Amino acid sequence: RKVERFMKEKGLEVGDHVRIIEKENGNTSVYEGVVMNPYELSSGETLTLKLDNGYNVGILVDQILEVEVIEKAAPREELEFEEVFPKKPGLPSVAIIGTGGTIASRIDYKTGAVHAAFTAEELAKAVPEIFEVANITPKLLFNIMSEDMRPEYWVKIAHEVAGMLNNGEDGVVIAHGTDTMAYTASALSFMLRDLGKPVILVGSQRSSDRPSSDAAMNLICSVRMATSDFGEVAIVMHGETSDTYCLAHRGTKARKMHTSRRDAFRSINDIPLARIWPGGRIEFLRDDYRRRTESEVWVDDEMEEKVAIIKAFPGIQPEIIDFFVDRGYKGLVIEGTGLGHVPTYVIDSIKRATEEGVAVCMTSQCLYGRVNLNVYSTGRRLLKAGVIPCEDMLPETAYVKLMWVLGHTDDPKEVREMMLTNYAGEITPYTRFDTFLR
Amino acid sequence: RKVERFMKEKGLEVGDHVRIIEKENGNTSVYEGVVMNPYELSSGETLTLKLDNGYNVGILVDQILEVEVIEKAAPREELEFEEVFPKKPGLPSVAIIGTGGTIASRIDYKTGAVHAAFTAEELAKAVPEIFEVANITPKLLFNIMSEDMRPEYWVKIAHEVAGMLNNGEDGVVIAHGTDTMAYTASALSFMLRDLGKPVILVGSQRSSDRPSSDAAMNLICSVRMATSDFGEVAIVMHGETSDTYCLAHRGTKARKMHTSRRDAFRSINDIPLARIWPGGRIEFLRDDYRRRTESEVWVDDEMEEKVAIIKAFPGIQPEIIDFFVDRGYKGLVIEGTGLGHVPTYVIDSIKRATEEGVAVCMTSQCLYGRVNLNVYSTGRRLLKAGVIPCEDMLPETAYVKLMWVLGHTDDPKEVREMMLTNYAGEITPYTRFDTFLR
Ligand SMILES: N[C@@H](CC(=O)O)C(=O)O
Ligand SMILES: N[C@@H](CC(=O)O)C(=O)O
Repeated sequence: RKVERFMKEKGLEVGDHVRIIEKENGNTSVYEGVVMNPYELSSGETLTLKLDNGYNVGILVDQILEVEVIEKAAPREELEFEEVFPKKPGLPSVAIIGTGGTIASRIDYKTGAVHAAFTAEELAKAVPEIFEVANITPKLLFNIMSEDMRPEYWVKIAHEVAGMLNNGEDGVVIAHGTDTMAYTASALSFMLRDLGKPVILVGSQRSSDRPSSDAAMNLICSVRMATSDFGEVAIVMHGETSDTYCLAHRGTKARKMHTSRRDAFRSINDIPLARIWPGGRIEFLRDDYRRRTESEVWVDDEMEEKVAIIKAFPGIQPEIIDFFVDRGYKGLVIEGTGLGHVPTYVIDSIKRATEEGVAVCMTSQCLYGRVNLNVYSTGRRLLKAGVIPCEDMLPETAYVKLMWVLGHTDDPKEVREMMLTNYAGEITPYTRFDTFLR
Repeated sequence: RKVERFMKEKGLEVGDHVRIIEKENGNTSVYEGVVMNPYELSSGETLTLKLDNGYNVGILVDQILEVEVIEKAAPREELEFEEVFPKKPGLPSVAIIGTGGTIASRIDYKTGAVHAAFTAEELAKAVPEIFEVANITPKLLFNIMSEDMRPEYWVKIAHEVAGMLNNGEDGVVIAHGTDTMAYTASALSFMLRDLGKPVILVGSQRSSDRPSSDAAMNLICSVRMATSDFGEVAIVMHGETSDTYCLAHRGTKARKMHTSRRDAFRSINDIPLARIWPGGRIEFLRDDYRRRTESEVWVDDEMEEKVAIIKAFPGIQPEIIDFFVDRGYKGLVIEGTGLGHVPTYVIDSIKRATEEGVAVCMTSQCLYGRVNLNVYSTGRRLLKAGVIPCEDMLPETAYVKLMWVLGHTDDPKEVREMMLTNYAGEITPYTRFDTFLR
């Protein structure tokens, strides 16, 4: 690929500290930082630098005017992971799958390794405590920011997780960007069937080379959760802004509710599963979760990708619904207003959609609470138009679920039935009072 | 119109208690309820019944098989409003503008009046306390559920409000459905220029004929707020689920955060303006609000309606952006992930949009927190593609603001400048720590 050729030409190695002059549309920019490992899944046209302020920047190779090496990478530690961290008898085994995101953004630079993000050295340096809790098997699967996560990658992660769990790992931790972590958690919740071991997604809001980083504590807590008596998909992130404890949120009920706070992840319409202190204490906050079992997990990965989320707003035009129908979309999740409404002049388009076999699901942009299409006449008209009311499901969860459901059937009756069946805690029978804005 | 002809034919009057048999697609339904006043703005094909359980249902006249009058409407009180509630000297004047929604859903039935929602009798019966607080001028402007509110109605409301304030009213209360109340509040915040008196939106989550209704207390508190030393647009709704106090939220910073709770409205990225007890005490929670002035308000009502909100999600296709550009949309508000991101493969479409003169604004689906496109490379690429980062503005507020801004200019530089100018409290200089999930 272009980037590898470029690096070879210039004698650049991963880990080199360089100064680069870039020219784009007549503008010249200068960057100083460490050359990172070219992402396997990228187009191969970009050189990635870890800037001195800790952030990554991708520079199109074609726009690089000049490269100057300030300091060569330190020669690589040649010790094998197993030599540095020999398995300790008696400890559970936890695999850590790297997918990228901020949590991996220190760990994957300055080393020289090909799969840089989770070398033993980096993990140990960053969070040595986890080796006291479990025998760790690190595996770098992707190295992307989670805004670039895609349904097909969810499937890859699911298979990786299943393979590891069925091959002796006692739990899996998935390091993931926070932007779309909740979508991935939902996808894994639906795809991993007969799951009997913990599958924990973890990320961080501040990269680990910043003093205020939440990466270390989140990782420790997630490894602890991955060794616990628990058999579901959960997100583990800071429970408060200070480093007190983490919360585990059910994969289908979690949402990133703040752009930058460390305690941004919240359970919506549900209480969290557990509080996890980095020291090891785990306090389950409820009883209705699956315990660890020896069942063999399998991946039910049929996903229909022609699905979209549409937000309703005053002034929305019916042509927007029509567009998706015309383009062959098979499913639409509407974020309605209030109990699940849209302007009534849009209902005809929705009716046409359902008549043409498109599954139209209703959620609420309020996020908290439950859709109810029986209260107002707008709702009843939507029901008559064939809309599926998604109870207290988050719009994001309903979206992922609808992709998964449509991967299995396109029979409208079955789609409705499956959407209203609780597969992974995504529907609660009633909304607890103490879950609002918590 | 059809409905009036039908009522005449059958000898039906508003207020009659009837039993109706409806046939639709072979299904027969029976409804019992009170005939309501046909909405002026409806298509005129539907007969609206207030069911005995308090909800409204619209029945297509063409599908009515049978009508039976169970009890005729009580003969109308012929007293004039002014006779029943003579103006009391010394009290401030407050106009109450009815637009519909649940808060009006008891008030507009059983009377026989054409503008039924706010007859003196109904108001008095429902909330006699308000006549102790102010001399009330009721005015029914619309009678729609707020999911049917449209930008052109915002303009009508704005002119009505301005007319009233410039003609001696000391404040205006707008009774409004809760679904899209926050959008309307934003619109009024931008359109009412040089506002120096309170403009208070109020609604209810439970219709006033249900014992748990929040209508009465919300109305009392909103009238109190409308007589206070305040000169902005605010939403006044329950502050807690019990009937303790109401909160006033700045019109550009409020959001309906729950489908059904009485305290669903919350200030986002901001603290509320005031606590209002029904007994009359008003506690302002901050100092940075406009006080009452004698300035003449005017309506700056230029709005560009070709604007849409797009939510980003994993798997979103660039064709969605292209669609809006191809259809001649002038502005797009994206609800990005995290700090304001989209999948990077969508950025080319966004760039094309901005190159063709479409204003593309970035907000966050986290809702809480602030967009920052300088942290990650995805964000920086979005900036280079011409995206306008909307600080801590709510997506809904950014949408309304963008319509308003584009009503004034289509020069990209001016659009950016105006979007980043704080006109009505929609941008806070920094996000207070104590505003998350409150
Ligand atoms: N944009 C990053 C942010 C993070 O990792 O927290 C991502 O989601 O991958
Ligand atoms: N759907 C109604 C609900 C309400 O009034 O609260 C509306 O927004 O008009």
